[in-house]
This record gives sequence, C-alpha cells and structure tokens, in this order.
Amino acid sequence: MRINVLTLFPQMFRPVTEDSIVGRANQAGILDIRCVNIRDYTQDKHKRTDDTPFGGGAGMVMFADPIFRALEDLGARKGQKMLYMSPRGKVMDQAMIEDLAKQDEVFILCGHYEGVDQRVLDYWEMEEVSIGDYILTGGELPAMVLIDAVARMVPDVLGNGESHLEESIYSGLLEYPHYTKPREYCGMETPEVLLSGNHKNIHMWRLEQSMRLTKERRPDLWAAYLKDTSHLTKQEKKLLQSVIDEENR
Amino acid sequence: MRINVLTLFPQMFRPVTEDSIVGRANQAGILDIRCVNIRDYTQDKHKRTDDTPFGGGAGMVMFADPIFRALEDLGARKGQKMLYMSPRGKVMDQAMIEDLAKQDEVFILCGHYEGVDQRVLDYWEMEEVSIGDYILTGGELPAMVLIDAVARMVPDVLGNGESHLEESIYSGLLEYPHYTKPREYCGMETPEVLLSGNHKNIHMWRLEQSMRLTKERRPDLWAAYLKDTSHLTKQEKKLLQSVIDEENR
Repeated sequence: MRINVLTLFPQMFRPVTEDSIVGRANQAGILDIRCVNIRDYTQDKHKRTDDTPFGGGAGMVMFADPIFRALEDLGARKGQKMLYMSPRGKVMDQAMIEDLAKQDEVFILCGHYEGVDQRVLDYWEMEEVSIGDYILTGGELPAMVLIDAVARMVPDVLGNGESHLEESIYSGLLEYPHYTKPREYCGMETPEVLLSGNHKNIHMWRLEQSMRLTKERRPDLWAAYLKDTSHLTKQEKKLLQSVIDEENR
Repeated sequence: MRINVLTLFPQMFRPVTEDSIVGRANQAGILDIRCVNIRDYTQDKHKRTDDTPFGGGAGMVMFADPIFRALEDLGARKGQKMLYMSPRGKVMDQAMIEDLAKQDEVFILCGHYEGVDQRVLDYWEMEEVSIGDYILTGGELPAMVLIDAVARMVPDVLGNGESHLEESIYSGLLEYPHYTKPREYCGMETPEVLLSGNHKNIHMWRLEQSMRLTKERRPDLWAAYLKDTSHLTKQEKKLLQSVIDEENR
C-alpha cells in the first residue's frame, strides 16, 4: 500500500516512517509511505506557502498552487482516494479505516493555520476527515493516527502478539481488565477466577466486566450492543440481563 | 506546564518535543515535556516489560512494576492528574482539553499490545482517555494528539497567526471555506463577496456556509447549535431560519 503525505513538516512523520511497529513495516517495504514537503513546490522566491484570507480575518490560508504541483509530481489523478485532515471532516471510525485499508494508494493532505484554499478540496474532490472534536496545531498528528490505524490492517504489518482480531471495538464492548505476573503486587490480588484454569468461568467473568464497563462509560456503544444480541448463548443472555437489571436498581 | 510521558517508544515523541510548533515551545522551555522509557525501569535481566495475561488469551500485558518505578522516579504522588491512553477511555473533547490545560503537571501512560496490568490503573487512579473509536498500535500517537491539543492552550505556545480564539469548534459550527491569492486559479474563481470589501456581507456569507456545512455533515453539532441561538442578531436568526427551511424541502 502506498501512502502519500503532503505536509509542511515532513520530519514529524518519523513515528510512522521509521519508529515503532508501523515505521518498521515501512522500512521493510511492507508499506510505502512518502512524505513530501509542500514548501519544495513553491514558485515564490521566498518559498511562501500561505497568505491572508480573501475577505479578511485572523490566520493564514495555504496556497493552492504548491499543493497542486506536489500532487501532480506524485502522479496523482482525479478520482484517487484523497483525504484532507480537518476538524470540519467526517469523524473517523473503524469502518472508515477498514475501507481505507482496501485502497492501493491514498493521498493525505495536512493543513496548518486556518487551512487550505478551498479550491484544492474542490478540484481534487478531497474527503475531509477529522479524528475527533478537539483542536490541534495542524493535520500532521491526525494523519499519523490515520496511517497507524490503516497500516495495522495491512497484512504482515503486525507481528505476533500484536493480533488485531480480538479487539474490543469489533465486539461492540469495551475491553475487560487485564492482569499479568505477579499474582499479588503491592497488596493487590489478581481476581481468583483468572487463576482458576476454568475457561468457561474466565470467559463469563471477562464478558461481565466488559458489559459493565460499556454500560457505565459508553451508553452510546451499550445501546448499539443491545440492539442485536442474537450471537449470545443462553447463559450469556442471562448474564446480560443481570447487568441490565443492575442498571435499573 | 510539566508533562511526563511513560512509554516503550520515547523516540516517537520528537514531533512534540523537537519538531513543529509544540516542539519549539518545549525547546524554548515554555513547556517541559519529559518522556521516560518504561523499559529502563525493569528489574528483569532481559528487560522484559510484559507477559501473557492471567486467564489466557491473545496478546501481552504490560507489567505493573516497571510502571510503578517509573512513576515514583518522576516524583509522582497519588492524586495528581494521571491519564492512560486507551480505547476504553472517555472520548476526548475540547472541554476535557481545556480542563487539562489548567494543570501544572500531568502524567500520561502509553500502553501497547493488550494493555497494562489493571492494578496500575487502580492504584494510581488513572483516568482512561480515548481519542476516538478506532484501533491503533499503541498509546503514543494518542498521547501526542492530547499533548498538542493541550499545549496550544498554554500561553505563549502559539505564535502570531496561529491564534486559537476564532476556532470553529468554539462557535459550535464548522469552519467556512477559505480562499487566498490568486483570485482565479485553474479556472476556479474566488466567491465575489469575499472580494467586495463589504464586511457585513462577508460575515453573513461565511455564517451561512458554516451553518450549511454543519447541518449537512454533523447533525449532532447542528442540533446542539439550534438549542441556544440567543446570541444571534435578528438578521442572523433570519439567515438561520432560511438554512433550516432548506433542510425541510
């Protein structure tokens, strides 16, 4: 999978091009992440990349021209998957990530200051993507978050022990608590059931913890989970009912 | 403001400790971001930081002990603001960021693999924070997103032209489109009103664009916006009504 990034701060991308799990996959050629500096495509002798907005107001707006030139240099064609990281965008979720992971090539534009000239988004038919409802200094960290989320879905990127099958969000419930050695630490014990070797009891305990956490912390996910419980066994349904009843006490 | 980060990949944090706007502020001493490697605190001769979970299952769980030692070495005391980046956490929003920006010191723990031993979270009373409903390879990028969002609220971190007052999320509406030089680019014109010099018309055009975008893209924000429109002028209310009416066509 080829991921092209257009940014004013290409050196920020080392976490996904060199370091950590995704960086290793990029170094190994499993991914092909290319970061180009928009500033390298200015025709201006001062290498300016932005100017004040037409109509006035605070902040600076990034010029269309260097971005057009960078895209053309990368071989971009209209109709390819083009993303612009923006607080105005569709809020990213796992379904969007799975869809992106099927692409052979993606272009990601990172904005700064007040954003980019609207004509870039219009001409290239860019999809605007937001990673959440908070304000950041630029689109670089959001782009890296998106790359990390997409990259881990690409075959061979994750090693053993980094499995992506049993993930909480897939099940619709939040993850249950984890414990590892030692059994007792600073006076805090591991729950007895986890040491019992009884796999059925362990499964039911974990499921109960996940149900309780989801109910308490994420009523939105809980409501969605309750809509379809047809995959649950009879005993799991009984457990679910007891967790629902706790709610009503 | 002092931000302490506990991670297995400290080199990933260069985007917020060295590069870009937040990195510059850290280098200038406006922020004090310290990243420690949890692996440096293992007592194990192989420097292992994780093991299989009690009760079985895929993935590895990070040991409590090295994290306890790292926190103690950083001078952490119970009751201080402690965050654990986790998909199980409360979803971060701008209100949470503003609250965090008021702290003098924050500790951020980044998990990997299946997560950390639950006793770390229990003992240190860590708040779990999620940046959104998608799965990542670890807590490092989410921690950087949080640091970036908090740092830009700290006085003197943002330079001129990076103002954080007129931000879309504060107004409750998505940002209107921006245009800068040239007036015409590749046959695409700047909307006439933005070149008119008529500030009132420009304001009304931008407000209308923001209202339309919010209505189309984020029904959740739109519904919240409509709940209190008492700050709008008579003319703005009339505009709002016309945008609402479009919806009903």
